[in-house]
Amino acid sequence: MSTDLQASEVPESETLRLIEWLASFGETEDGGTTRLLYSDSWLEAQHAVFDMFQNKGLTPFFDDAGNLYGRVEGTEQTSPAVVTGSHIDTVVNGGKYDGAYGIVASFLAVTRLIEAYGPPKKTIDVVSLCEEEGSRFPITFWGSGHITGQYAGKDPKDYIDKEGVSLETAMHEAGFGKKQYPAPHRTDIECFVEMHIEQGHVLEQNGCSVGVVEGIVGQRRYHIHVTGESNHAGTTPMTFRKDAMAAASEMIHWIHREAFKDDYLVATVGQIEARPNTTNVIAGHVVFSLDIRHHEQDVLDTFCSSVLTHLEETAQHYGVSMQASKWLDVSPVSMDSGLTRRALEQCSMHSIPAHPMFSGAGHDAQVFGNLFPTSLLFVPSHNGISHSPQEFTCREDLEKGVRMMTEFLYTIAW
Amino acid sequence: MSTDLQASEVPESETLRLIEWLASFGETEDGGTTRLLYSDSWLEAQHAVFDMFQNKGLTPFFDDAGNLYGRVEGTEQTSPAVVTGSHIDTVVNGGKYDGAYGIVASFLAVTRLIEAYGPPKKTIDVVSLCEEEGSRFPITFWGSGHITGQYAGKDPKDYIDKEGVSLETAMHEAGFGKKQYPAPHRTDIECFVEMHIEQGHVLEQNGCSVGVVEGIVGQRRYHIHVTGESNHAGTTPMTFRKDAMAAASEMIHWIHREAFKDDYLVATVGQIEARPNTTNVIAGHVVFSLDIRHHEQDVLDTFCSSVLTHLEETAQHYGVSMQASKWLDVSPVSMDSGLTRRALEQCSMHSIPAHPMFSGAGHDAQVFGNLFPTSLLFVPSHNGISHSPQEFTCREDLEKGVRMMTEFLYTIAW
Repeated sequence: MSTDLQASEVPESETLRLIEWLASFGETEDGGTTRLLYSDSWLEAQHAVFDMFQNKGLTPFFDDAGNLYGRVEGTEQTSPAVVTGSHIDTVVNGGKYDGAYGIVASFLAVTRLIEAYGPPKKTIDVVSLCEEEGSRFPITFWGSGHITGQYAGKDPKDYIDKEGVSLETAMHEAGFGKKQYPAPHRTDIECFVEMHIEQGHVLEQNGCSVGVVEGIVGQRRYHIHVTGESNHAGTTPMTFRKDAMAAASEMIHWIHREAFKDDYLVATVGQIEARPNTTNVIAGHVVFSLDIRHHEQDVLDTFCSSVLTHLEETAQHYGVSMQASKWLDVSPVSMDSGLTRRALEQCSMHSIPAHPMFSGAGHDAQVFGNLFPTSLLFVPSHNGISHSPQEFTCREDLEKGVRMMTEFLYTIAW
Repeated sequence: MSTDLQASEVPESETLRLIEWLASFGETEDGGTTRLLYSDSWLEAQHAVFDMFQNKGLTPFFDDAGNLYGRVEGTEQTSPAVVTGSHIDTVVNGGKYDGAYGIVASFLAVTRLIEAYGPPKKTIDVVSLCEEEGSRFPITFWGSGHITGQYAGKDPKDYIDKEGVSLETAMHEAGFGKKQYPAPHRTDIECFVEMHIEQGHVLEQNGCSVGVVEGIVGQRRYHIHVTGESNHAGTTPMTFRKDAMAAASEMIHWIHREAFKDDYLVATVGQIEARPNTTNVIAGHVVFSLDIRHHEQDVLDTFCSSVLTHLEETAQHYGVSMQASKWLDVSPVSMDSGLTRRALEQCSMHSIPAHPMFSGAGHDAQVFGNLFPTSLLFVPSHNGISHSPQEFTCREDLEKGVRMMTEFLYTIAW
């Protein structure tokens, strides 16, 4: 099973041209992109994609959350739809590729396949999901969460942005949430396929153009509060101290060292604050963040449990108290093993250097993956940079990603 | 050698009454005291002490820096003066005892001795030093530094407070620095004796009422900059990281553990900042403070050198860079061993439980101690608290301190 579309035949600049075009909606002064959910730039971008779908013969339609579909009816009309795409929103001053590339890749793959082979057997919906990042409102996966029914019962009045605008108001002002469009929740999905930039540098380090994701990590996030006693840095002998910083440093050092014991485990203390935070006063209080990720629930459970036990013991040893507050707990999600295998076969067949891997970042694919067979594919991020105007993927890899998506969708839907 | 003044004979409330009275100049809402150098409350306090000296027969006079003396001429007029006292200034919202108690103790001891025995053989100057804390201008020991000639050549125009007022302007507005008073620099000092609150809890822990200080620690302060690479906390495997926080935590843990190897060494990391300081981003930069103190120059030199070597090695191990910037370097100062011995003998003779010790905090005594035989005595600080409205020394210890000072000055000057 293979298309006859060779890399040399596709117009080389088309992918990049569409990425640059999409980046013009919400372009920032230093070449980044800001498209927050339901903002003017977001709305312009969704409507521009609507027109693009229409111009290429896809039937565009919104759902009531603001997700945008471009549909191609399949010749086997009874089959559920193959849904493919990514998210249109960005972080503040983010890059051009995060989310946008996935929409472009799915759109180009589908239009090229239609051009070459006519309509697919199965209905295909190219999707521009309304929100994934959580950059405007304190909630993520607003698009995929609506499609999968995860947000049934959530009240958009409860989420407020920095300007004091509620999610409901923003939604209404953009024209959504008023039942003028079909309800977003769907059960008629055969599979979901997403292409995304890696946001790490595993592919670059391994010299691969495509990553085939086997699973998306589970995450736990904590704030660890260590409370000792503030005291004079000169007049308090070491043995009389209850030094929260000394205890915290041993904790952080231990966590970091321990995380090396599993190749796929990552543990990060990115945030720290001390009180009173003065050079000549022993810290009475230190709070630090802890972010732990792994693709296997068992490993995550065991590691987090051993960390908490060790932190408690360390606190006792230093005569301080420790309180761990967990504020995020997301389970790992496996991608569909059949689709993963098929994606790797396609890469091999077309000599696209590919790497089976796990995603350390969250993606819409994990929301779909809980309910439908799902596949997530990566292209490299130069130096692993993302969420920045410096985000970059070279043209060759962008094209290889589109070609891979084309071959893959052909095997799934044609 | 002993006075006939027994504890029972002195009016018990006099010490406390004077401390409360002094605390009324610059009293804060929550019972603390703020008397910043050359401020209105500072000026009122110095003039009130001037009157107090005069009322009790001491001859009061200012020097041109604002130090205030209360002189009692000795009967042996050729001898240089015994100078005794402490500082009148406080930190912002500090306690009632820090500095003030030393002035009160010296004043009461001298007036009681005069009352009982008439004028001393040696001239005594009770001194209310103008500044020690460095709370208004970025310079400490402004009073003792002028008396010892340490500030000769320093230009008060170069020091600016938070309101943008220069030290020169503040000085002039308070009436000093205009050569209307005698120049502060003195060489006619036989010895300096200071009584101060401990600001630690070594005395309380040891059940002692008086501490006899053998030496004041040397201090080194650094800012340690650790620079790695910010990266995604989910997509960057542990082995690819240049995690500044991981490196810093090992450094801080090592420093803290190493400081236990010497009973008198103290090492403190009180301040820390991470960048970008975000839960899901690996810290690219961490800067932390390091405060190291010991009373022996050799130990201080060796420890600081081994710390810097170890930090450099740790940075290399983590693939990050380390830069240590030293911004304070004060040498240890020994108190006069003859005076120390005599003070301990007096305590023993009068059954005042005393403890030979080192001062981990800086005091005016260290400035005098570089040039003149100097003795520093402590009374306990409850729970080691100072620089706070909660600063407290019990009445019994305040009285024992005054009694100790009385016996001590009797042996020195009568």
